[in-house]
Amino acid sequence: MNTFGRLFRITTFGESHGPGIGVVIDGCPAGLPVADEQIQAALDRRRPGQSELTTPRAEADRVEVQSGIFRGETTGTPISLYIRNQDQHSHDYSHIEHAYRPSHADYTYDQKYGRRDFRGGGRSSARETAARVAAGAVAQQLLNQHNIKVDSYVSQVGAVAVPVGYEQLDLGLIDTNMVRCPHPETAERMADLIRQTRDRHDTVGGLVTGVVRGLPVGLGEPVFDKLHAELGRAMLGINAVKGFEYGSGFAGTLLFGSEHNDPFYTDEATGQVRTRTNHSGGIQGGISNGQDVYFRVAFKPVATILQPQSTINDQGEAVTLAGRGRHDPCVLPRAVPIVDAMTSLVLADMLLRARANKV
Amino acid sequence: MNTFGRLFRITTFGESHGPGIGVVIDGCPAGLPVADEQIQAALDRRRPGQSELTTPRAEADRVEVQSGIFRGETTGTPISLYIRNQDQHSHDYSHIEHAYRPSHADYTYDQKYGRRDFRGGGRSSARETAARVAAGAVAQQLLNQHNIKVDSYVSQVGAVAVPVGYEQLDLGLIDTNMVRCPHPETAERMADLIRQTRDRHDTVGGLVTGVVRGLPVGLGEPVFDKLHAELGRAMLGINAVKGFEYGSGFAGTLLFGSEHNDPFYTDEATGQVRTRTNHSGGIQGGISNGQDVYFRVAFKPVATILQPQSTINDQGEAVTLAGRGRHDPCVLPRAVPIVDAMTSLVLADMLLRARANKV
Amino acid sequence: MNTFGRLFRITTFGESHGPGIGVVIDGCPAGLPVADEQIQAALDRRRPGQSELTTPRAEADRVEVQSGIFRGETTGTPISLYIRNQDQHSHDYSHIEHAYRPSHADYTYDQKYGRRDFRGGGRSSARETAARVAAGAVAQQLLNQHNIKVDSYVSQVGAVAVPVGYEQLDLGLIDTNMVRCPHPETAERMADLIRQTRDRHDTVGGLVTGVVRGLPVGLGEPVFDKLHAELGRAMLGINAVKGFEYGSGFAGTLLFGSEHNDPFYTDEATGQVRTRTNHSGGIQGGISNGQDVYFRVAFKPVATILQPQSTINDQGEAVTLAGRGRHDPCVLPRAVPIVDAMTSLVLADMLLRARANKV
Amino acid sequence: MNTFGRLFRITTFGESHGPGIGVVIDGCPAGLPVADEQIQAALDRRRPGQSELTTPRAEADRVEVQSGIFRGETTGTPISLYIRNQDQHSHDYSHIEHAYRPSHADYTYDQKYGRRDFRGGGRSSARETAARVAAGAVAQQLLNQHNIKVDSYVSQVGAVAVPVGYEQLDLGLIDTNMVRCPHPETAERMADLIRQTRDRHDTVGGLVTGVVRGLPVGLGEPVFDKLHAELGRAMLGINAVKGFEYGSGFAGTLLFGSEHNDPFYTDEATGQVRTRTNHSGGIQGGISNGQDVYFRVAFKPVATILQPQSTINDQGEAVTLAGRGRHDPCVLPRAVPIVDAMTSLVLADMLLRARANKV
Repeated sequence: MNTFGRLFRITTFGESHGPGIGVVIDGCPAGLPVADEQIQAALDRRRPGQSELTTPRAEADRVEVQSGIFRGETTGTPISLYIRNQDQHSHDYSHIEHAYRPSHADYTYDQKYGRRDFRGGGRSSARETAARVAAGAVAQQLLNQHNIKVDSYVSQVGAVAVPVGYEQLDLGLIDTNMVRCPHPETAERMADLIRQTRDRHDTVGGLVTGVVRGLPVGLGEPVFDKLHAELGRAMLGINAVKGFEYGSGFAGTLLFGSEHNDPFYTDEATGQVRTRTNHSGGIQGGISNGQDVYFRVAFKPVATILQPQSTINDQGEAVTLAGRGRHDPCVLPRAVPIVDAMTSLVLADMLLRARANKV
Repeated sequence: MNTFGRLFRITTFGESHGPGIGVVIDGCPAGLPVADEQIQAALDRRRPGQSELTTPRAEADRVEVQSGIFRGETTGTPISLYIRNQDQHSHDYSHIEHAYRPSHADYTYDQKYGRRDFRGGGRSSARETAARVAAGAVAQQLLNQHNIKVDSYVSQVGAVAVPVGYEQLDLGLIDTNMVRCPHPETAERMADLIRQTRDRHDTVGGLVTGVVRGLPVGLGEPVFDKLHAELGRAMLGINAVKGFEYGSGFAGTLLFGSEHNDPFYTDEATGQVRTRTNHSGGIQGGISNGQDVYFRVAFKPVATILQPQSTINDQGEAVTLAGRGRHDPCVLPRAVPIVDAMTSLVLADMLLRARANKV
Repeated sequence: MNTFGRLFRITTFGESHGPGIGVVIDGCPAGLPVADEQIQAALDRRRPGQSELTTPRAEADRVEVQSGIFRGETTGTPISLYIRNQDQHSHDYSHIEHAYRPSHADYTYDQKYGRRDFRGGGRSSARETAARVAAGAVAQQLLNQHNIKVDSYVSQVGAVAVPVGYEQLDLGLIDTNMVRCPHPETAERMADLIRQTRDRHDTVGGLVTGVVRGLPVGLGEPVFDKLHAELGRAMLGINAVKGFEYGSGFAGTLLFGSEHNDPFYTDEATGQVRTRTNHSGGIQGGISNGQDVYFRVAFKPVATILQPQSTINDQGEAVTLAGRGRHDPCVLPRAVPIVDAMTSLVLADMLLRARANKV
Repeated sequence: MNTFGRLFRITTFGESHGPGIGVVIDGCPAGLPVADEQIQAALDRRRPGQSELTTPRAEADRVEVQSGIFRGETTGTPISLYIRNQDQHSHDYSHIEHAYRPSHADYTYDQKYGRRDFRGGGRSSARETAARVAAGAVAQQLLNQHNIKVDSYVSQVGAVAVPVGYEQLDLGLIDTNMVRCPHPETAERMADLIRQTRDRHDTVGGLVTGVVRGLPVGLGEPVFDKLHAELGRAMLGINAVKGFEYGSGFAGTLLFGSEHNDPFYTDEATGQVRTRTNHSGGIQGGISNGQDVYFRVAFKPVATILQPQSTINDQGEAVTLAGRGRHDPCVLPRAVPIVDAMTSLVLADMLLRARANKV
């Protein structure tokens, strides 16, 4: 199913080298101001060719609004956003028409569907995420109405990690460098590692940290649709993601309950309920508690490397395959807007769902 | 929404201290042999009071089949399974009627719904997972028809970890000790840690590793419903879970692409396509590739500790609260059947969904 | 799928002669006052044996609330309602174990699922509708909060029809006679026809008219989920229903546009927008316009007749079969609470869905 | 929700006078041959300006395939079909910007969403159905693989009705006249009535009869998703539809059970199970029984008439409004491909759903 969300719901379509990719947003409330430029700005953060650290492919990724917005506001009808593919005919993909790239989706698509559109990965290409980013920009507008702030950033590349937690960072610095890491010194070391990796024709993975501030209490649902379960599913649905943790995460397994519990108190100045620590990551029982929500997403090094690799073809015969063309040595910087988008989509959906909690 | 799954679909209901808890399974194919004892056996692995390491509460958790099974086989109609609560009136919960236990769902439920059934945690109690385990036992029967084998085990408690990977373990040993760890030596050290923690009136977390063998190629769907995204959502929906990773997981971020990629080869003996390494965790592009699927789930130390803690009441006033009654110092051993159940439910759903892939 | 509704959502389970039938209501807002007696009162209107015109089978149909209601109010968690079957073992159904009753679901169930629970029709029995009626009583409580009034009544039995429209009837008279027809003179003629039919060991069909008053403007959704499309689906899902029309319905096809259109005007006294006629049946573009919603539902004569009939068995051999036991000669009087319930469920769902229309 | 179907699922988007309209088909199995010309042929049956009986507006309605089809076959990924609007800027709609056309969706949209795209009816325009027709053409290809034949035709216009049942008609004649009525003599009388109505600046309604032949046994689901309930919902979701009946329908309420029941027999020649009559309309217990499925759909006279009408504006003030431009005096001929499309979509979905019935 290519649909995400229950009330704020998106359906994406399109292949890497078909005519274009797009998304239909259904369930967006009427009366939301949305400008084309807001969607375009989000796409520009994701598009290839934006810096020396990403693939040198240059695609403009211009969004076309096909429906659902009238006089600058949503009308309550489906919003269709379309992005034309530019150089859909310019490459030669004959080398992978019958061969299975290691750790790619070639083999599994072929087995599942009995065929695949092999041009540039077809539907399994990360190009599909542009549609999610466009939709996320609309969701972001809904969050803005509620003063909810979503920020994610690159917190680790290979073994190079930001040495402090998000609370000690100025998240306004995220877009001040090519890596999208708000710790400038670490950002430079990350950039160096990415350049070295690129020059070795290899790829490198890392972590993106997501932070949500200003979330109201009460988003998320008990049992299966816990807020962190929906966030986790959203993140694990992004290409190359291998893991998700929120709050104390995997490290929290090393604490005892007496250390891990977050004591409640009432803030004297504001009268608001707060917790003294936030190992819960802003979520208790699957429901937001008003503290910051934060989480980490693990990205593997992407599979396309410009080195010869042993694999098989669709007859099961051993062949050697080398990646061609222009690819990202590290997807982390371009993954940031995707994490932002998926986070925003989950929260927009939960905001609408929360409207039905009480009589 | 208290429903999980699209085609093999369960809806759970019930509170910790109401009349009982239960589950309706909808979409289970007709003709599946299901015996009450199979469901009961799964419940017995989860029930409290089964060993000295778990809560001494003793509940029989007898399943009653209310519909959907006729003459020992499923009929294609909804299967309703019900488990009566036994000592629903025996406890005094007045101490938490108006106070918010730290890192519990008391506060968020109250805010979301304007009220809560405070007796024993109500709906947020882990007791609800018994319904999932019962349903999972039916899903397991469907997997058995396809020779799919699901096993999970405790791989870490606090800082005590199994020193080898799942491939080097005999998973037949899982139920030979109270901890459900198939590495006997480590299991003993884990049991010691749990006993020490219990005696300190504290709690301890850890990891459960899940392993799926015999999975056919082609389960899972591109984009949002990737097999690992559905598994991740299922795991993150279990009480106390803080993180999920599959295949190489978080550690995979430290490898380069040339190290991480899994080369394909054709097994000469069987003619089957295989990969030489399995950093992919048996899933590529969101779709199973026929190798083992494996993943790890992080559980925090549970919040109920038998020590006084500072918190607030529903008037925002500071109060001191101490856990009462009988609780698990470590939920990991009883979490194993829950992980098994949720894994089985995801796979059963994906098996049915895969029937619509091709013309 | 045994689930109905998107936000106010019910899942029913149970067979005619299994242990019992039931329903799980998910998505009901918290804080709704619901008393067991309200649910019981609705069930009493549907139960067999309530008058000489219905089957003489006497089943108490006592509802048990298993979850979701605490201190007389909904908590926002799933509400499970269960009705035990009483005489589940008392009948002999061997005559239909291998034979297919004409115009029943025996043959199609057997073909679809490869088996069926033949006792009393199993899942295809109208007994399942008791679960819907119980759930409808909860939905009705939600509608009461909004002063929405749902009434349905028997408007035709065989060829005996109420000679006037609903606007000219006192709907307070519906329950003053056994037929549930608020036109007393017609009700007597209907009762006579039902008695004659019963004495001939035959069955007779008819029409139920549904009326909704006090509905706010804006319920229902464009395109596929039009309010009348959801009502129609709900009605066509009731056993024995063959047709649905709303507003001018089939008769409206004989009018010209200039006759059929409903002119808007502003009521001077109240300032409210109204229409001078209501051929639209209170729905325009799939969305309620604030006028009365009304519709008609056609019920066939039920298939169980106490006469010998030619049919085949599951070997395809010709056999003769006669209905046994105690059955309704006319289901219309007992269908009224089912129509009420399904109408209430649709409206409750649409009420919740409408909360997400606007920013 | 602008999505229809559970497994074979479409999402439509677009407004009458925006850039275009379209549909995303998700869940279509891979390997289905689909040619652009097949989709175009279906659209040509629906497009305006195709005969003197329809609106003289001439729109080419060219379909563009944006994704999901590769080398003439579906790939299992979403199929996006787009139809550009041609004269989106050519009309003046200022007269309805603030006035509510009687029996249109203007008022209800404005109330529901707080705004509307008033140009040509926006989303409520029947133009949206072109997207459904395009999707239906793909569904039709799936039905072709199973030799399922869907035909619908105009069986009544105003009071002019085909005097015989569908079994006595040659459905191959449907497209031999402008009205799409396979009874040539009646077709001429219908055409006369439509011309007269047009010349009086009025509109006229009627009936479309749908027929499905070759349907396998076992499609449709018990309880809520009965085959006829899904068909009914699909039909009631078409603009201007007021009623739906299948099999004996409303007229069946006048028969006794002994007359209405359909006796089973085994056809000696083929060994197939058949029924001697077919009041059931090919569906028993909500599940297809292998006989023909047939139903009737009531269309009101459309609301747009070229006569002055009294109504109000969005300030509640009385105004007079007259339809402008070119409109259909009778939508029945162009409704036939829409009924075909929606029928095909329901059946395609049910075909896929039936794959999960049995182990």
